[in-house]
Amino acid sequence: MTVLDINNNSFYNKFDYNVEKAIEALKKEFGQQFSISKSVREQHTSTTTVHTPELPDGVVFAYSKEDVQKTVKICHEHGCPIIPFGAGSSLEGHLNANFGGISIDMNNLNNIIEVHSEDSTVVVQPGVTREQLNTYLRDTGLFFPIDPGANASIGGMTSTRASGTNAVRYGTMKDNVLSLEVVMPNGEIIKTASRARKSSAGYDLTRLIVGSEGTLGVITEITLKLYGIPEEIGAGRCTFRSVKDATDAVIMTIQAGIPVARIELLDIAQVRAVNNYSKLSLPESPLLLLEFHGSKSSVKEQSELFNEISKDFGGNNFEWNDNIEERNKLWKARHDVYYAVKACRPEADYIATDVCVPISRLSECITETIEDMEQNKLFGPIVGHVGDGNFHVQLMIDPKDQNEIDVANGFLERLAHRAISMDGTCTGEHGVGQGKKQYLLEELGSAVNFMKLIKEELDPKGIMNPGKIL
Amino acid sequence: MTVLDINNNSFYNKFDYNVEKAIEALKKEFGQQFSISKSVREQHTSTTTVHTPELPDGVVFAYSKEDVQKTVKICHEHGCPIIPFGAGSSLEGHLNANFGGISIDMNNLNNIIEVHSEDSTVVVQPGVTREQLNTYLRDTGLFFPIDPGANASIGGMTSTRASGTNAVRYGTMKDNVLSLEVVMPNGEIIKTASRARKSSAGYDLTRLIVGSEGTLGVITEITLKLYGIPEEIGAGRCTFRSVKDATDAVIMTIQAGIPVARIELLDIAQVRAVNNYSKLSLPESPLLLLEFHGSKSSVKEQSELFNEISKDFGGNNFEWNDNIEERNKLWKARHDVYYAVKACRPEADYIATDVCVPISRLSECITETIEDMEQNKLFGPIVGHVGDGNFHVQLMIDPKDQNEIDVANGFLERLAHRAISMDGTCTGEHGVGQGKKQYLLEELGSAVNFMKLIKEELDPKGIMNPGKIL
Repeated sequence: MTVLDINNNSFYNKFDYNVEKAIEALKKEFGQQFSISKSVREQHTSTTTVHTPELPDGVVFAYSKEDVQKTVKICHEHGCPIIPFGAGSSLEGHLNANFGGISIDMNNLNNIIEVHSEDSTVVVQPGVTREQLNTYLRDTGLFFPIDPGANASIGGMTSTRASGTNAVRYGTMKDNVLSLEVVMPNGEIIKTASRARKSSAGYDLTRLIVGSEGTLGVITEITLKLYGIPEEIGAGRCTFRSVKDATDAVIMTIQAGIPVARIELLDIAQVRAVNNYSKLSLPESPLLLLEFHGSKSSVKEQSELFNEISKDFGGNNFEWNDNIEERNKLWKARHDVYYAVKACRPEADYIATDVCVPISRLSECITETIEDMEQNKLFGPIVGHVGDGNFHVQLMIDPKDQNEIDVANGFLERLAHRAISMDGTCTGEHGVGQGKKQYLLEELGSAVNFMKLIKEELDPKGIMNPGKIL
Repeated sequence: MTVLDINNNSFYNKFDYNVEKAIEALKKEFGQQFSISKSVREQHTSTTTVHTPELPDGVVFAYSKEDVQKTVKICHEHGCPIIPFGAGSSLEGHLNANFGGISIDMNNLNNIIEVHSEDSTVVVQPGVTREQLNTYLRDTGLFFPIDPGANASIGGMTSTRASGTNAVRYGTMKDNVLSLEVVMPNGEIIKTASRARKSSAGYDLTRLIVGSEGTLGVITEITLKLYGIPEEIGAGRCTFRSVKDATDAVIMTIQAGIPVARIELLDIAQVRAVNNYSKLSLPESPLLLLEFHGSKSSVKEQSELFNEISKDFGGNNFEWNDNIEERNKLWKARHDVYYAVKACRPEADYIATDVCVPISRLSECITETIEDMEQNKLFGPIVGHVGDGNFHVQLMIDPKDQNEIDVANGFLERLAHRAISMDGTCTGEHGVGQGKKQYLLEELGSAVNFMKLIKEELDPKGIMNPGKIL
């Protein structure tokens, strides 16, 4: 689809890229580990995105940090763009080679290097996926909570500062990465921090790299925090008369210190889509889905407290599932919202938005956004990580209808402006990539100039994933 | 005291500072708000530290961000060092003017700008102190948990990435600062992030500034996360046969997911000092002090679970205080450890160490450290934020005994090496300042070069708190 390719690359245009020489050198160095076949290149670009795929000129399949280092050194020498590639599930065009260059496939760096169960930490390679990690950890009694939905790679999740449904309790990648090993743009390998759980040792390079979307280096090792698998997991759902009532109940829940593990909002359109796709009969009202983690008695107490709070805000039909099957059915329906929405309009393309606002402004932001869609005859069911103020409009647009595309573009701009004017952000968890650069400027103004200074200093040839963020 | 002034300033020596012209310009600009009196300058240097005080050439008393911006612009124009000054409680020589220049006193920027109780956030000026903030918040039902002991300023706590006794539950300043307003070294004012609870919008400038110890800019506004005041707070204490048994109990407590709010270790020497000073009769064994936050039933359950775990590791004399008076007495004794230790050896000077290691290595690190002190006839009771792996040896050294000073220097070096060799850090919460620069290099190696690149790019004249970190 060709909507929304708003690529202002003025920052990157000054760099002098030379791909061909790098390709020659990489061929020589990597032999069978390097491919220029079209089908391979097609698999290594942004596909789960509204941005037009832009293929790299070649793909290196890395098997070790030494492979990564060699690749970066060759690309640095010749000034060749290099784009780290994990599960390929990013949503903002991060994997597009809009200046050509090579993709470095990290999927074979997929070892879980060391679990330190006494420390509740694990060291992994970037190609390890979220599900692979949790399957591996099962016998240890520990788990890694961050769950962006897709079975993303840990490297990719680190690079986009990912989060997902349970960030309200466990934080985002920024809170759960303890340390990184990174091949910097000049080929040097650095360790950003020790494995201590806290540190005041110098500039926080860990969190400078987390969320930098591959523009400051290639991550080769990640040390993560882990958590004990809760003794009990309980889930429930509750409907409300309005989005405002639902979000007010969420605000009160958080202020009361109830350590809710997930608290997800579905608007009416989303509930209808889910009912239809997952064969459920949820009441057609704004819906909260909840999950509580803790001891048996703590989970019971949390759910009772939430029930009391929800009643104060007109919540009804509160249903509680401590039955695993029921719980899984409910959350499967939540995780299937993409398919549910897709089924409503199979011919349309899918655009995921990602604004995040202070929770006090959330109902206003969602309500205005729904009105905006109604006025403009757009179809976009909403799901929200409502404990964080983050919500996604799942906009369904006919790629053949230029008028609808234009209307959608206007809507997307208004949505970003709306969130930013409420002291929120254009992106809560997907990242800036290609598509949100103009909004980043609107959101943070001259702070972006200091990001550019950092980028220029750490990557003077501009080889690391050009065209993204800045 | 003159121990430990290990100041390798090779990084900063290249900058060409010119203080006199800046002083002239500041006098003209600020009149009565600028002082060069010796007594004022003496109050604006590092005094709570082993590092020799190095006085600034003048002090600007700022009342607004405009004052800060004017000061930075004048200092930038003339190349004059500028050192932000808050409560003056930092421990690593951060406030010393080792290249001369001026101190900017931030204590009059002490407004609590806005509490957003629905969002559990607050915006404050940097001169607001921790106690001032919590007094102000009392009626809102919210509190700010980070507690480094001293009544530090929020600006200073942000700059050193401070934490303290309840970081095990609430994290450190890095986890609780949402956004900053900063006057950058060129005088530009930036906002590092929106007020949304999470964001993937570009490089994490917030966390680059948190912990940068005044070397990248002057903070003028801080947006913090707040928490609901717990319905119930319970405290307890438990003695163990050995430091290993105590730390093993802590490891199990954390793995079990008990959301302990504080879990502090006192070694035998510290227990003796506390008994003596605070007129207590704690058993002379390694001691854990605990605090639990939650609902009444949750606090009860947490304490019962901990009691079970502690028994598995030979814990005994577990005593539980839900009586506020008892609890306050216990924690007052903990907070008074400085005075307790000082009372043991009134003629000696106090050196606080700050290593932090993965918790699996903590008992080994503490045990070796106690042995090291015994072998070298040093006196240094230990307190530890044991849930994070962070502990402080409170070394008492006779400033007139050069032999003891030399022995202490050797001990401090071995302690840092020991922690770093266990994949830990030389500083868990105090910061690098003047004293730990050589250890930072040992800990993070070539990563420090990238910190230097960032510093040079953002502060090309090197005016922001020179001589620290790098």
